[in-house]
Amino acid sequence: MSKENLIGKEIKCLDHGFVRLVDVMGDDGSIVQAARVSYGAGTKTVNEDRGLIRYLMRHKHTTPFEMVEFKFHIKLPIFIARQWIRHRTANVNEYSGRYSIMKDDFYLPDLDQIRPQSENNKQGRSDETFSSEKANAIREKLGKVQKELYTEYESLLGEELARELARINLPLSNYTEWYWKIDLHNLFHFLRLRIDSHAQYEIRVYGEALAGIVKEIVPHAWQAFEDYSLNSANFSKPELNAMKKLLEGQKVEDLDLDEIGLSKREFREFQLKLEQINQ
Amino acid sequence: MSKENLIGKEIKCLDHGFVRLVDVMGDDGSIVQAARVSYGAGTKTVNEDRGLIRYLMRHKHTTPFEMVEFKFHIKLPIFIARQWIRHRTANVNEYSGRYSIMKDDFYLPDLDQIRPQSENNKQGRSDETFSSEKANAIREKLGKVQKELYTEYESLLGEELARELARINLPLSNYTEWYWKIDLHNLFHFLRLRIDSHAQYEIRVYGEALAGIVKEIVPHAWQAFEDYSLNSANFSKPELNAMKKLLEGQKVEDLDLDEIGLSKREFREFQLKLEQINQ
Amino acid sequence: MSKENLIGKEIKCLDHGFVRLVDVMGDDGSIVQAARVSYGAGTKTVNEDRGLIRYLMRHKHTTPFEMVEFKFHIKLPIFIARQWIRHRTANVNEYSGRYSIMKDDFYLPDLDQIRPQSENNKQGRSDETFSSEKANAIREKLGKVQKELYTEYESLLGEELARELARINLPLSNYTEWYWKIDLHNLFHFLRLRIDSHAQYEIRVYGEALAGIVKEIVPHAWQAFEDYSLNSANFSKPELNAMKKLLEGQKVEDLDLDEIGLSKREFREFQLKLEQINQ
Amino acid sequence: MSKENLIGKEIKCLDHGFVRLVDVMGDDGSIVQAARVSYGAGTKTVNEDRGLIRYLMRHKHTTPFEMVEFKFHIKLPIFIARQWIRHRTANVNEYSGRYSIMKDDFYLPDLDQIRPQSENNKQGRSDETFSSEKANAIREKLGKVQKELYTEYESLLGEELARELARINLPLSNYTEWYWKIDLHNLFHFLRLRIDSHAQYEIRVYGEALAGIVKEIVPHAWQAFEDYSLNSANFSKPELNAMKKLLEGQKVEDLDLDEIGLSKREFREFQLKLEQINQ
Repeated sequence: MSKENLIGKEIKCLDHGFVRLVDVMGDDGSIVQAARVSYGAGTKTVNEDRGLIRYLMRHKHTTPFEMVEFKFHIKLPIFIARQWIRHRTANVNEYSGRYSIMKDDFYLPDLDQIRPQSENNKQGRSDETFSSEKANAIREKLGKVQKELYTEYESLLGEELARELARINLPLSNYTEWYWKIDLHNLFHFLRLRIDSHAQYEIRVYGEALAGIVKEIVPHAWQAFEDYSLNSANFSKPELNAMKKLLEGQKVEDLDLDEIGLSKREFREFQLKLEQINQ
Repeated sequence: MSKENLIGKEIKCLDHGFVRLVDVMGDDGSIVQAARVSYGAGTKTVNEDRGLIRYLMRHKHTTPFEMVEFKFHIKLPIFIARQWIRHRTANVNEYSGRYSIMKDDFYLPDLDQIRPQSENNKQGRSDETFSSEKANAIREKLGKVQKELYTEYESLLGEELARELARINLPLSNYTEWYWKIDLHNLFHFLRLRIDSHAQYEIRVYGEALAGIVKEIVPHAWQAFEDYSLNSANFSKPELNAMKKLLEGQKVEDLDLDEIGLSKREFREFQLKLEQINQ
Repeated sequence: MSKENLIGKEIKCLDHGFVRLVDVMGDDGSIVQAARVSYGAGTKTVNEDRGLIRYLMRHKHTTPFEMVEFKFHIKLPIFIARQWIRHRTANVNEYSGRYSIMKDDFYLPDLDQIRPQSENNKQGRSDETFSSEKANAIREKLGKVQKELYTEYESLLGEELARELARINLPLSNYTEWYWKIDLHNLFHFLRLRIDSHAQYEIRVYGEALAGIVKEIVPHAWQAFEDYSLNSANFSKPELNAMKKLLEGQKVEDLDLDEIGLSKREFREFQLKLEQINQ
Repeated sequence: MSKENLIGKEIKCLDHGFVRLVDVMGDDGSIVQAARVSYGAGTKTVNEDRGLIRYLMRHKHTTPFEMVEFKFHIKLPIFIARQWIRHRTANVNEYSGRYSIMKDDFYLPDLDQIRPQSENNKQGRSDETFSSEKANAIREKLGKVQKELYTEYESLLGEELARELARINLPLSNYTEWYWKIDLHNLFHFLRLRIDSHAQYEIRVYGEALAGIVKEIVPHAWQAFEDYSLNSANFSKPELNAMKKLLEGQKVEDLDLDEIGLSKREFREFQLKLEQINQ
């Protein structure tokens, strides 16, 4: 899709959220243009441009990717906004609950996302699901509380309480909005962390929406990002030791973890990477 | 108070929060030491050091102030944390509601802070107060909701709902904690904005607590900050035009706003600055 | 001049340098658009937009100004590049002397800029000039050395010495080039410091060239910047004390510096500000 | 070596340069302390601390590493300073050639570092050396020019030319000095790039000196950095495809590059990684 068609288009995220491309400066050609100042050479063919972009990505020459800039309008639940804002290398203008009245929009998870605590991942939900009755009951509870809290908020506003105080009992599931501007290098960094399987599901939804836009605007850079970063795997020194043994024909189950220097936990992580290879 | 006595000492803020100095690198001497590399000169007397610090502050030579670093442990309500985190030039490690159980601590404003919306300041509370009955009623309401929300949170955890979901209806008044590390230049910038009368009262309380610590660690830099920044006043070009007239003997009430280039709103702001002068 | 006419146009700076606008994202409207997300309000008239921009600038609400982004191609002497790069909140791709051959372009000051050390400003040149014979002699000397150094550089390259070593004796007057991308808020900060009379003349020339472009792209923001920042004056607490006395009718020469808290040096600075007012 | 013994100790770099640890805030324990705020857990045994540090490094949980801060005094040639300063997330105070007289110290490479341009690495020197006569001749030439340039500089100063102008023909080999303050996470990033074999030899020397200090101050973090970052290898998606074939028993020379998706250039890079594994 062309830049013109992408700008202004709302991409729905979760139940009430969205990502909307407001503006973008540059494209694949801008990366090449900036890199060629550092290399002091003229314009080249499309094929050479693509090759240069891939070279830059592969060798982590990151500054030319900073020369493309995206601006988005985003509506998102506050608990996601709190994770998001930790990416400091971006510009943000957020809707203000001191200045304006917060809207009656709250995030209520879909039934299949209402899941138990994961047992092996201390910071995430399980792949298992609850019974549909239980999920339903939880969902109703969450929704009921949200309604009550907004009614309470309105009643406090009705009593003339200052907005900056009336909002303090609004929940983290309340939606907020912001303008968010970031360069491509830092956006790639954001996406690497936020479309990863360890990220909270709700921010991953936004990550995927952003990725869909980026892919259209800078297709060569995106492809390079996928090949050399997103779908790459990093092997630690101990893992490289293990890999050496495997390439010499040893079997995974025969590896001497102490000799190689892998803890049991790291060994499990190593096995996951091997599975990724064998997919 | 000496650095040794300050480190580890909890300074209470609001009802359940605190600021605690964890560590500090440098003092007034470090500012001078760094500045003298740029000026290429040797050590001097205490008096010359003080003079240099004041000179640097006055002329906005900010980099030497970046050479002092503070680390704090802070407990604060989430709605304040959301304002705080907008200062990007700092390092943060926050308590995670995905990984850990949020604590049963909520901010409940003191009665005299429960106030109506300000009429001339769209983003703040009034200087007026409610009747003590009304303030009491609002406070009880707020407290009751907080109790109910924590009970709900515990019940969702009891049903094994993933922590990252169970917390989404916790309110912005819930307390969080973080380690926050920042250099003196950026801390001054934070303080200038956050102990200002336009800042929300609750963050001002933290600003004052931080200021109390900074003052002890770098007394000369603090004094310079007060004289040249915090208690200084900036006059716009139109305000300087007005000042010229006043210095020539004209009376404030006779100023020709159109000629001077001041809007009515700006003129009121100008009058406030004159009052500040005459205090 | 329209954005379309500005993009690509080379603005000459010094003898061989230039500033060229490569791309820009946003205009005055983008500042307002971003601010209105934080304020949660709809579109307004041109006049209200202008008023809002001025309000934001006056009250140092800086984030909406970060929503406009400029990209420049700049050719500049290395000693200027070294001052310039201290502004960290920008993206840069510089021509590489390791990868490419440095060009035979050196900065040779105009005769009227070849001046003695200033006596009261330790880091600048005097307002006085040399005799034209002396200035001429110095200029010839500088030019001769530059020629010899480039010949030497070429001879080392001719002997196959690695480029990254052959260039180490090239002088700071050699020109380099870069792509430089920065948002409007940080660009204003750069300009405030770099078109100031204390900045080195050679970087001021670039500052003025950048300012000329900014003025065309965001005329309302520029005007606000001039009125509230560039042409404003900051008065320290002691200076406000002095101002109070003057407004009460006391004469400058009768001020009691000790009582007011002004050092002699600060008093001279205060007098300069009064002169600025009376211009 | 203890922190107390490290602070103030000058580590010589190149012919006239040095790295000197001025101050440090924190140690391995500070990383753990900050991480445990996010995890809401108390202090643990040394062994658990080490394990946590390794876990954080492995999973790129970078913020706790930002909680350790280093301050260095460094003397280095200007062409190295120009590469160094590109790392923006640091605080810097540099000796000023506008304010002070530049010193008579220039970098003259050792004979074995005077080498021809590399043929396969466009931005570096070859592993080959020149004949000792040729290297000697080049070295003498470089040294002679440096002497002449400093004599010229002194003569211009003698004629009262402003320092900010007299220095413009000083070469990039001239030494400068600065205070440099950076957190551990960003220092690791700096070291990863600057002790890499693709970095210019002269900056690698400084990288190694810094590494030697870091290793002593945060031994566990350093070990984790070596294992999971410095000595790790990243395999792109196409390289993982190749790896799969190799693990299935195929020989490197039989790989079908088109099928796998590796260009010839990438294939050579892949072979280098395999060699690294087999070391």
